[in-house]
Amino acid sequence: MDIALIGGLAMAFLSIIVSTVMDGNSFGPLIGPSSFVLVFFGALGSAMSSLDKEDLGRIVPSILKSIKGASFDNSATVTMMAQLADVARREGVLALESRLGEIEDEFLKKGTQLILDGVDSERVEETLMIHMEAVGTRHKKMISFHEAVGGYMPTFGMIGTVIGLINMLGNLADPSQLGAGMAVALLTTLYGVIFANMMFLPFASKLKLISDAEQASMQVVLDGILSIQAGMSPQMLVERLESYLPPSEHVGYSDRMAAAA
Amino acid sequence: MDIALIGGLAMAFLSIIVSTVMDGNSFGPLIGPSSFVLVFFGALGSAMSSLDKEDLGRIVPSILKSIKGASFDNSATVTMMAQLADVARREGVLALESRLGEIEDEFLKKGTQLILDGVDSERVEETLMIHMEAVGTRHKKMISFHEAVGGYMPTFGMIGTVIGLINMLGNLADPSQLGAGMAVALLTTLYGVIFANMMFLPFASKLKLISDAEQASMQVVLDGILSIQAGMSPQMLVERLESYLPPSEHVGYSDRMAAAA
Amino acid sequence: MDIALIGGLAMAFLSIIVSTVMDGNSFGPLIGPSSFVLVFFGALGSAMSSLDKEDLGRIVPSILKSIKGASFDNSATVTMMAQLADVARREGVLALESRLGEIEDEFLKKGTQLILDGVDSERVEETLMIHMEAVGTRHKKMISFHEAVGGYMPTFGMIGTVIGLINMLGNLADPSQLGAGMAVALLTTLYGVIFANMMFLPFASKLKLISDAEQASMQVVLDGILSIQAGMSPQMLVERLESYLPPSEHVGYSDRMAAAA
Amino acid sequence: MDIALIGGLAMAFLSIIVSTVMDGNSFGPLIGPSSFVLVFFGALGSAMSSLDKEDLGRIVPSILKSIKGASFDNSATVTMMAQLADVARREGVLALESRLGEIEDEFLKKGTQLILDGVDSERVEETLMIHMEAVGTRHKKMISFHEAVGGYMPTFGMIGTVIGLINMLGNLADPSQLGAGMAVALLTTLYGVIFANMMFLPFASKLKLISDAEQASMQVVLDGILSIQAGMSPQMLVERLESYLPPSEHVGYSDRMAAAA
Amino acid sequence: MDIALIGGLAMAFLSIIVSTVMDGNSFGPLIGPSSFVLVFFGALGSAMSSLDKEDLGRIVPSILKSIKGASFDNSATVTMMAQLADVARREGVLALESRLGEIEDEFLKKGTQLILDGVDSERVEETLMIHMEAVGTRHKKMISFHEAVGGYMPTFGMIGTVIGLINMLGNLADPSQLGAGMAVALLTTLYGVIFANMMFLPFASKLKLISDAEQASMQVVLDGILSIQAGMSPQMLVERLESYLPPSEHVGYSDRMAAAA
Repeated sequence: MDIALIGGLAMAFLSIIVSTVMDGNSFGPLIGPSSFVLVFFGALGSAMSSLDKEDLGRIVPSILKSIKGASFDNSATVTMMAQLADVARREGVLALESRLGEIEDEFLKKGTQLILDGVDSERVEETLMIHMEAVGTRHKKMISFHEAVGGYMPTFGMIGTVIGLINMLGNLADPSQLGAGMAVALLTTLYGVIFANMMFLPFASKLKLISDAEQASMQVVLDGILSIQAGMSPQMLVERLESYLPPSEHVGYSDRMAAAA
Repeated sequence: MDIALIGGLAMAFLSIIVSTVMDGNSFGPLIGPSSFVLVFFGALGSAMSSLDKEDLGRIVPSILKSIKGASFDNSATVTMMAQLADVARREGVLALESRLGEIEDEFLKKGTQLILDGVDSERVEETLMIHMEAVGTRHKKMISFHEAVGGYMPTFGMIGTVIGLINMLGNLADPSQLGAGMAVALLTTLYGVIFANMMFLPFASKLKLISDAEQASMQVVLDGILSIQAGMSPQMLVERLESYLPPSEHVGYSDRMAAAA
Repeated sequence: MDIALIGGLAMAFLSIIVSTVMDGNSFGPLIGPSSFVLVFFGALGSAMSSLDKEDLGRIVPSILKSIKGASFDNSATVTMMAQLADVARREGVLALESRLGEIEDEFLKKGTQLILDGVDSERVEETLMIHMEAVGTRHKKMISFHEAVGGYMPTFGMIGTVIGLINMLGNLADPSQLGAGMAVALLTTLYGVIFANMMFLPFASKLKLISDAEQASMQVVLDGILSIQAGMSPQMLVERLESYLPPSEHVGYSDRMAAAA
Repeated sequence: MDIALIGGLAMAFLSIIVSTVMDGNSFGPLIGPSSFVLVFFGALGSAMSSLDKEDLGRIVPSILKSIKGASFDNSATVTMMAQLADVARREGVLALESRLGEIEDEFLKKGTQLILDGVDSERVEETLMIHMEAVGTRHKKMISFHEAVGGYMPTFGMIGTVIGLINMLGNLADPSQLGAGMAVALLTTLYGVIFANMMFLPFASKLKLISDAEQASMQVVLDGILSIQAGMSPQMLVERLESYLPPSEHVGYSDRMAAAA
Repeated sequence: MDIALIGGLAMAFLSIIVSTVMDGNSFGPLIGPSSFVLVFFGALGSAMSSLDKEDLGRIVPSILKSIKGASFDNSATVTMMAQLADVARREGVLALESRLGEIEDEFLKKGTQLILDGVDSERVEETLMIHMEAVGTRHKKMISFHEAVGGYMPTFGMIGTVIGLINMLGNLADPSQLGAGMAVALLTTLYGVIFANMMFLPFASKLKLISDAEQASMQVVLDGILSIQAGMSPQMLVERLESYLPPSEHVGYSDRMAAAA
């Protein structure tokens, strides 16, 4: 579970509840299943219409992914790259084959395989970058989807409010119903703004954060693979790759190897 | 028929109908031919004014295209490229001529023809990229048109509402008509928002999706053509081109050739 | 006359008139010279303040240009380039001098002159690109001006409405005037939105379309000039330049020369 | 004085006055010192908070600069560059030293000095581009400041209106004051929109125009300096640099030298 | 303390207080703890949900940093680089080791160390740029966070207002409470706009300013390090690096060395 997402949204929902209680307002008038139906399925439908058929099945997993979160341990990656550089330096590039089994990260495995296949440096870079871009493009599609839902929701909220107003204005004969009608009409606007700003826009931001972190992590791997192939020394490799890490994680080659041993 | 577009928009329309019924609102006051005329032809007219004369005839086909959808089987393209690379490797580049008849994709055909003409690599890339950009530019024009219609519609909705309000405010003598006048005035706002968000903006998004997919598909072909011309082995070519595909479609050279046989 | 602009805007104006008649609204309350003065001269003044003194005189011509339209026959340009390439191939580059008189397009003339002057390829490209960019920059200024007018107009519409509301609210003693005062106040909002969306924003879009088409047309000329200078064969040149054209205009070298003969 | 700015804004202010008179509205209710204080100092304060301490002193000069305007005579610059090229061609690059005293433009002086110092071409380009970017960055800061003021002003106008509404709504006991209270409340909204759209946004646009023109002018100098250093002939230099000018100023080398003599 | 931020925001708050007093409005109705809770914790929660867990602890420090400000003395950096260049010129690059202890700036230290390690020029540039980008990316995350808070605040203000309106409209039986209810409802809108425009958006702008200044400062160091490694003379280095400074700080090599001595 992504603590920042869960905690942040919980805090936001609590702030609505607490402030409503403090103002002495009641929650009864804030409950409206019809507003939920209009805002939720309307916005989802309009946003889904722009997806590929194949991507429809990725909506729920992407929501779960944003709730579950993801983290990329770039410092561990640097240590792993240092070990590979060490092997390559001491025993030659082909000795990396023995380590292939230990590598869990798919992207690092692919890069190591390309070195083993004797592919030249420029092609390794191209192939890995095509992979990175393809991954990024697939993620961007889902991020755009959540942003689209978050963008359509206030619009469908307004559609519901205008429909309610038009009906209310046609029945002005009974003015006692005026307030109640307008209250119901406003409910869809409220739902549209709340669901957009407390669900789908945060989902989109979180997915973008995860995607950016994944790209950054792949960039470390790509840089390391090319450096290993170019025969860079493990010490130099660590100094270079640690530039990607925050200053607190600049521990140096010896400490990394000691910690990994 | 593009199931995502049809299904998504159907869900959105249904959500409006269901929620209106749930609220006990009636549909009678929501019907207004004059609002339809203003929003639809007003926005269409303003958006059409920015088109080239030649592109006016492409409006209806582009709507049909977004409804019909389009898909690009990049995996099949990779297999096809592998077969061409196989022929080129075994029998020489000129042997590709015998396969020219089997190629249906215009872009791949053009690329293969350029190889056969003995055009050098840089010029092949330039010529194919000019073609890709020209196709993309033509599509962007239509996408912009649908976005423009979707942008003008709420504006024309507001124009209708303001005209209605001005007329209503001038006739305040009969207050019993006030509500009805305002209800009619609001109808154009409703139509503007609905038609924009449930037709033209989704059309634009879908056309953009199709155009992006087509460009990505052409990119696979371009990359493959240049690799074949450079004499890359079919095995290596498949490894490279599969980077463009989602991981589930990374089946490798042997499986592709077996499946194609 | 640009048929798309004239026809589109006529359709949009008609849709307003037809829908107003259908609703039984009258046009009398929609006429207000003071609203016209405020919206038109206010927005024009604010937008003009950001122009160069020299560009003030280009406002009216730019409006006329957007109404008149402009078209660029890139297919004819390709044929012309093919003829020049033919001459250069058969009689040498210097023989182009005899054709200089027939060339009407200023940009093509300049490029041909540079070849004749024996300027090297890189400098020809630089000089022509400086020219293209300078033309584009001059056009962008006018496009921005029309967009600025279209952006200021709804704002000045709102200024007029707020001024009207403030005056009306200060005279609440006579409630019978309330509606009429508010109707007049709303008129500037209506004018601001109408003039922006049915004049200046479409003007800006049309000018942008013309400018983009001119840049694309210059790109064809630039590419052709460099290819001729590089000694490309007319057949190859046509194949290359036709990539810029829509598929329906890919007629090939022989047909072009036959048609031109 | 920049005639376009002064004339444009005068026209915009006049249009407000004329239309207010035409509607028979009075100016008395439009005067409110408190609204001025809130909108002007509120927006200025919020925008100033994002400036560097050193830049606070540049606010007033930048306003004066936008009012005074600035023009760059690129045609004169081309003539000057042609003369320098002439000297360099005939008497050698070091003879430029004798002309250094006549050069007023700081940027041209710096470039000429770099040539005299015998700095190599690539470094001259780098050094001059660093200078251009540094100038552009300093200008962008002030442009952003004026845009920020123009962006904050309507917001502070709304803050004042909401404060007024809240106070008015708490005193509904005396309905006769309702209209007057709301009129005063609306005044800050009016001031916010007027000051933003008729002062700070036009100031920002004008400063941007001046900055763009200065960059373009520096680009001509940079291009000319590099061409002179590369030993380009004065005739060729004029042909090249005139590409930056509008067609009406393409007068050629001989006419320039004749006019300058 | 950053005087521009503190002074600017103080001026903005004062302008609200002064104008409220001038209008004879009272502050009592402007105080609402429930509105504070909703706007502050709601917006904070929604924005926090998009942060990495690790970055939650950086929120308060980033606010303090924007209040405290930061300045980068690029002129002193140029002098320091001139001294290092002087040492490298006279005693050789390895003599820089003796100066390493005096260097406080981490980035300059890292660059000098890379020179001492004999790393080649291209790798020095790459390593330092990776470091610059990583620093910039970390800062951008916090800037985006403050912008997100500033963006969510008016939205949560509107949520509170709509909740208040819905409750008020459901209790129209007692019209004497109507005004008071609406006044309370509007308070969250006011708080949302004020806290966004007078706290979090200015915080974001100030952090962006600091981050841009830091990047510019690192750019001077990077340029200087590469020039020293390339053996540029101290005089030439000063001339080059002073291009980054405003004209008033172009004092030249001799004055810098004299002042530093």
